Amino acid sequence: MLVVKKFGGSSVADKERIFNVARRCIEDYEKGNQVVVVLSAMGKTTDQLIAKAHEINPNPSKRELDMLLTTGEQTSVALMTMAFHALGVPAVSLNGAQVPMRTTSAYGNAKLKRIDTERILHELESKKIVVITGFQGINKYDDMNTLGRGGSDTTAVALAAALHADACEIYTDVEGVYTADPRIVPNARKLSEVSYDEMLEFASLGAKVLHNRSVEMAKRYGVQLVVLSSLTRAEGTIVKEETKVERMIVSGVAADKNVARISVIGVKNEPGIAFKIFNLLARNQINVDIIIQSIGREERKDISFTVARTDLEEAMTLLNENREAMTAQAITCEEGVAKLSIIGAGMTGNPGVASKMFEALYSANINIKMIATSEIRITVLINEADVNRAMRTVHDAFDLAE
Amino acid sequence: MLVVKKFGGSSVADKERIFNVARRCIEDYEKGNQVVVVLSAMGKTTDQLIAKAHEINPNPSKRELDMLLTTGEQTSVALMTMAFHALGVPAVSLNGAQVPMRTTSAYGNAKLKRIDTERILHELESKKIVVITGFQGINKYDDMNTLGRGGSDTTAVALAAALHADACEIYTDVEGVYTADPRIVPNARKLSEVSYDEMLEFASLGAKVLHNRSVEMAKRYGVQLVVLSSLTRAEGTIVKEETKVERMIVSGVAADKNVARISVIGVKNEPGIAFKIFNLLARNQINVDIIIQSIGREERKDISFTVARTDLEEAMTLLNENREAMTAQAITCEEGVAKLSIIGAGMTGNPGVASKMFEALYSANINIKMIATSEIRITVLINEADVNRAMRTVHDAFDLAE
Repeated sequence: MLVVKKFGGSSVADKERIFNVARRCIEDYEKGNQVVVVLSAMGKTTDQLIAKAHEINPNPSKRELDMLLTTGEQTSVALMTMAFHALGVPAVSLNGAQVPMRTTSAYGNAKLKRIDTERILHELESKKIVVITGFQGINKYDDMNTLGRGGSDTTAVALAAALHADACEIYTDVEGVYTADPRIVPNARKLSEVSYDEMLEFASLGAKVLHNRSVEMAKRYGVQLVVLSSLTRAEGTIVKEETKVERMIVSGVAADKNVARISVIGVKNEPGIAFKIFNLLARNQINVDIIIQSIGREERKDISFTVARTDLEEAMTLLNENREAMTAQAITCEEGVAKLSIIGAGMTGNPGVASKMFEALYSANINIKMIATSEIRITVLINEADVNRAMRTVHDAFDLAE
Repeated sequence: MLVVKKFGGSSVADKERIFNVARRCIEDYEKGNQVVVVLSAMGKTTDQLIAKAHEINPNPSKRELDMLLTTGEQTSVALMTMAFHALGVPAVSLNGAQVPMRTTSAYGNAKLKRIDTERILHELESKKIVVITGFQGINKYDDMNTLGRGGSDTTAVALAAALHADACEIYTDVEGVYTADPRIVPNARKLSEVSYDEMLEFASLGAKVLHNRSVEMAKRYGVQLVVLSSLTRAEGTIVKEETKVERMIVSGVAADKNVARISVIGVKNEPGIAFKIFNLLARNQINVDIIIQSIGREERKDISFTVARTDLEEAMTLLNENREAMTAQAITCEEGVAKLSIIGAGMTGNPGVASKMFEALYSANINIKMIATSEIRITVLINEADVNRAMRTVHDAFDLAE
């Protein structure tokens, strides 16, 4: 059996945790399995490196930032491999260039394009545990590229797919996927399984268990994931294709506070305006979420949408620079907002789910600013100050604690 | 003009020093020169990384240690490049794999084999300062390899040779090469130039201005070096081919305390014994310096030699493991010794230099344990406790302060 095991930064934050991870991997290895370990940078290393960069240059080049950040995982894999050796198990570390993992050239937010498995398979065949840097690869210029935050999950899934792994285990500091954030909703319940699509919605909504792209990739290549804790032995949550058995209508409630609303006010009611706005943002790697366009009365209309709060400043600068081209009369923004979502593969064909959510919010006197829905998700934009209370209210309304 | 400028770890230890280095490089760049910057890891980074490795594994694999250590220079070049950008100058960083600099596979002590200059020249042509990691390269397996301590000097010289650079400047924390260590000999004088051969002797004797291999490489490829300080504007010392002008007989005095004596006692007086001893050490990358063999009386003889003190433990283990194969009756060692040398291209054809040195030591009542000479160097092994006094005595005897 070939197992890919991914451990996040907090799981390798210090010597004790490194050895803890090493021992868990050796358990698998000693059962005769081939083991590939994917690691993030230790603890807060990435944040510290970013702070170091900002000390030198408040606006560092993305290429150079990737050059700096990729040292983080390289440090992790070298130390982890030394830990395996200390425990008497053969192991070898590989960085993104050595595998190689080829990426696109979007520094800071690259996508994996191709993984060459020859070196990894060779090392596995010589009975080594192979310890691979998450979060990074090299582009066609042989420059280091990072995959964006949480990219180590994507690395693990991509490796599992490329190696036709029998299992892909994502170790985190929580025990799995919950019906809601247990720090906010005390009676939240751990789910034994979720579908890829539900997980995608959870991930995109700030339930930071798995990186969004990693779930998309797992879905595309049919890689079954297990999310579990590196600190306990509790059973985790399996992420897999939708099963046919009867399911809960709603699987969970998630909130995302890293959100801001932008409104482009009074643009001309003519074709191409929305394209100009969203193309401008897309070209600058800014993701846009909920979009609402007012019904055009006479010649002008308003377009509102949400972006990650961390992208707000850049988005506003770009929009203001291009205000005239977009025919906008004004551009406004709002920071104190949050998204609240319910997610569930069972929603399809179950009318009344949305109205039940809105009723719960109304009864708690929480105002809804924007609404967006997908097949398996309903999201509302509300005041950030209301979000924890809203989460508990909605969790109760759908009896998620059972 | 194409200039290679190498800065050591202390020159890039913090933000202020990084910007200081950046500004000095920009001076050259703004004169219209093409500038290649070679950097070591910041400050004590390499030592800290080694300590981190030892925390995990007291005897880390050399491959994994190289994987860990090479993050140090990658961090330096990324931050330095960000500093250039902050000062408005285009620049790009490259690590050993990106250049690529191909090395042999001796992890921890690799030799540069080949530098591909295409990428560097391309970046220079697009008017960028190119900031390159010293001390590292990749072997035929694409594994990271370090060149051993001080290897960044070698990187700089190799780059200067490969790029046919017009100048190769090695910035250190001293202002050049002195007739003796100024901390020990207060009236030591800075030399305006030394020959490659003299510099080689200085380097091999613990005057840690330039890495030995870098001088050998500079000599082989005729790369003229300048050793100068990154902190002052003082003129440095030029290292170049021997000039024909009349020279001082002795250029300087150097001492090396990182030395230990080993004696292999009572080996059989038959061919191949010396080969067995020194081949054993060479295969394990242990360099041997002064060698003395007692004249064989009857069937047995003794062989003594010096090794770096840091290699002593490993050397003694190896020798003891192979004592019987070497026919040795005993193996002894001594740590409290030091080498003292006088160096000078003018020694050749000037008889009496050695006797003058020995006279000076005799008059200071310093006992000589071993003697070794080369064309341009005379080295004695003395007690470590005497070495600073011996240095001043010999420096005076040859009137090196002028």
